[in-house]
Amino acid sequence: MLKANDFEGRDVISIKDFTREEIDFILKTASRMAPLVEKGSDLLRGKILATLFFEPSTRTRLSFEASMHRLGGSVIGFSQPGVSSVAKGESLADTVRVVENYADVIVIRHPLEGAARLAAEFAQVPVINAGSGSEEHPTQALLDLHTILEAKGRIDGLKIALLGDLRYGRTVHSLAYALSNYDVELFLVSPPQLRMKREVLKDIKGKIQVVEMDDLTPLLQDLDVLYVTRIQKERFPDPLEYEKVKGSYRIDKKLLESGREDLIVMHPLPRITEIAPDVDETPQAWYFKEVRHGLYVRMALLALILGAIK
Amino acid sequence: MLKANDFEGRDVISIKDFTREEIDFILKTASRMAPLVEKGSDLLRGKILATLFFEPSTRTRLSFEASMHRLGGSVIGFSQPGVSSVAKGESLADTVRVVENYADVIVIRHPLEGAARLAAEFAQVPVINAGSGSEEHPTQALLDLHTILEAKGRIDGLKIALLGDLRYGRTVHSLAYALSNYDVELFLVSPPQLRMKREVLKDIKGKIQVVEMDDLTPLLQDLDVLYVTRIQKERFPDPLEYEKVKGSYRIDKKLLESGREDLIVMHPLPRITEIAPDVDETPQAWYFKEVRHGLYVRMALLALILGAIK
Amino acid sequence: MLKANDFEGRDVISIKDFTREEIDFILKTASRMAPLVEKGSDLLRGKILATLFFEPSTRTRLSFEASMHRLGGSVIGFSQPGVSSVAKGESLADTVRVVENYADVIVIRHPLEGAARLAAEFAQVPVINAGSGSEEHPTQALLDLHTILEAKGRIDGLKIALLGDLRYGRTVHSLAYALSNYDVELFLVSPPQLRMKREVLKDIKGKIQVVEMDDLTPLLQDLDVLYVTRIQKERFPDPLEYEKVKGSYRIDKKLLESGREDLIVMHPLPRITEIAPDVDETPQAWYFKEVRHGLYVRMALLALILGAIK
Repeated sequence: MLKANDFEGRDVISIKDFTREEIDFILKTASRMAPLVEKGSDLLRGKILATLFFEPSTRTRLSFEASMHRLGGSVIGFSQPGVSSVAKGESLADTVRVVENYADVIVIRHPLEGAARLAAEFAQVPVINAGSGSEEHPTQALLDLHTILEAKGRIDGLKIALLGDLRYGRTVHSLAYALSNYDVELFLVSPPQLRMKREVLKDIKGKIQVVEMDDLTPLLQDLDVLYVTRIQKERFPDPLEYEKVKGSYRIDKKLLESGREDLIVMHPLPRITEIAPDVDETPQAWYFKEVRHGLYVRMALLALILGAIK
Repeated sequence: MLKANDFEGRDVISIKDFTREEIDFILKTASRMAPLVEKGSDLLRGKILATLFFEPSTRTRLSFEASMHRLGGSVIGFSQPGVSSVAKGESLADTVRVVENYADVIVIRHPLEGAARLAAEFAQVPVINAGSGSEEHPTQALLDLHTILEAKGRIDGLKIALLGDLRYGRTVHSLAYALSNYDVELFLVSPPQLRMKREVLKDIKGKIQVVEMDDLTPLLQDLDVLYVTRIQKERFPDPLEYEKVKGSYRIDKKLLESGREDLIVMHPLPRITEIAPDVDETPQAWYFKEVRHGLYVRMALLALILGAIK
Repeated sequence: MLKANDFEGRDVISIKDFTREEIDFILKTASRMAPLVEKGSDLLRGKILATLFFEPSTRTRLSFEASMHRLGGSVIGFSQPGVSSVAKGESLADTVRVVENYADVIVIRHPLEGAARLAAEFAQVPVINAGSGSEEHPTQALLDLHTILEAKGRIDGLKIALLGDLRYGRTVHSLAYALSNYDVELFLVSPPQLRMKREVLKDIKGKIQVVEMDDLTPLLQDLDVLYVTRIQKERFPDPLEYEKVKGSYRIDKKLLESGREDLIVMHPLPRITEIAPDVDETPQAWYFKEVRHGLYVRMALLALILGAIK
């Protein structure tokens, strides 16, 4: 039987490193964090989080920082490589071996795949991956699960579609792996050029039922969860190709009328044009609510990893 | 009769949104904050301020951050848009709907007019405008008033001159509106190209006595307050025009000798060449003292808005 | 007899401003800080540190910030001049006269020599120099001393070599001055183009025994401390010159085998190629351990200067 202090000192690099039992434990802990957002807490007083962002990110960085502050801890770090020793040519391994002296836990975002894993290997303090390369974004996957759980009361038995760019977006890779621990039907809806990465597909196909398709329409009336991602123009060598497909992956209020009333629409944000503003006020819109669940999940991870929950 | 909790949850977007009674209440609360700068306080322990600076500003950003820390609270945020999701094309409304999940109050500075107002409409937490466009900078106006009050013991009955660029500088617009609540004589001294914005002039002329002029000299011996602003070369299509006027709007020690002994010289800072360094050591120099009043006023606003003063 | 409160309110601009007795007092205080890194402390609760970094630096900035947080204090500041009023043309003296209103102590890094001294002259709160120009970096020198003391139990009587670029590197200048207070033999090993600055050499030669040389090899077997610095290609007008010398100033495991077993290798970091990665795991490698001593020394300085230790 899993206990809170089994997480003490642990790195969070890939959602694949966690069993379903562990994921469920984190999600349950996250739910206990919700009241602490309002009340505040001294759980991590005296602890320091270092945020090493080698790539810009408002949402993820501020989410971790707010999580740390809500638990009474402090934050140091940088939000772009230009202001760091990296600009002087320091290796990531060296940066990490410096920063581990200043902080009790390190959160890292990096443009290169494998960077967070490398950092964790060198650091003597726990490392949390806040996105590295096109690979993994485990805390986003956890917050997605926590949002689904709140909206639906369960994850098992749901019909879930991932829509848009399934090839380059790291959040959908992590989410697909996370969902493959549950008994879900997964629909991967994308233009042919942006199909789910083959290796991810291969890994999850053995565990859950997966269908790849081009078009959302036939699916919509049966769907419980629609997870939308942005399609970036620069992914298409031919701009005409982009113009052809982009309309099919844009969600608006009218389209949602052919879906179930209790469908939830999610998005990792930032949202550009792929969800029309008229969706924002519908009960289906859950993409801003997700942000709050990011706090819960990150507070839970910080508290667990730092051994503050017994 | 106004009470502290009438301010709870309130946005601070424009000084025009506040009555004289409300302004006086804030100024009185600010005076109570002064001892807390030295002693520190736990009034806002557990609360988080988000500073969203889409335009650089040391003074204003650090002033808000120090105010929050002096009251025991925490701060998250960014100091330039390049490190935010905005660089990925996110709308301001979306950024605000994300950040309101992380923070109890948002301070925003933005190059576009109306940006702070828009943010306040979307945010469910209070928003403070730290300067948007050339329009408004309400906390600067409040700290200007608080400085005058400390120096003179009153605002009513004073002769006050605003000098320099009255057209583009947002601080003078907010200050003019703020002063129009009091019984003052206002002198607007600027080159013809940089006259006070017509709409501001129209608004305040009905309320107080206003005189526009080119030259400070005839006025100086009667003046209680001289508020200096910088004239930027790039405002002049013809550089020769700039060279012609700039000397007339530069204050030095010699010039001040023809003014009253108890004249106070103010400036929103940064000061470049428009006040000579030899003024710094005179008793008339109040522009650095103003900075301290910025702390008092911002501590008061944060405490009032977050309902920490009963 | 020196007392803790003799340091209250004091600036830390140059290591030359401190006597041996004072340095020893700071080092002793630093040793008392070590347990507080783990336990945390409220020694500086309610105090604010401002970090004004006009030049990027991860290590030094984060070290000061972590030191402040470990003692319960708060931090404001900027990590690059582009986001500050300096971009608008504000003088350093004015910036300092603004920031002293927000903070109880200022840490400054600046590309120009003399900048920290100037800041200290204008500021009414204590100023710590975190590196200005090629001149001085006093807290680095103190942490170097503290590291040597921990590794060797003493500084007097040691044979110490400074290797690499002794002309432009500010850390070696401060360290040479610091060591000149002790009874050490100092070896300055560099290519002729990068010899120790003449003025530094002149100052320290009267106080301790100094030998300048090109080659480390004959020295190695007698050495207690080897302090390595980076040689930057751009210091050489002729790239061929650089290629010729660089190999002689690179340390690897094999080279260390001809040194003493208890030799310690130090480096101010960032390390690029001048120490081979195979040295990292040897017992001689002390360059990452130094980072921790930076915390101790900076915590001690902040606590002393702010009068928190009686």
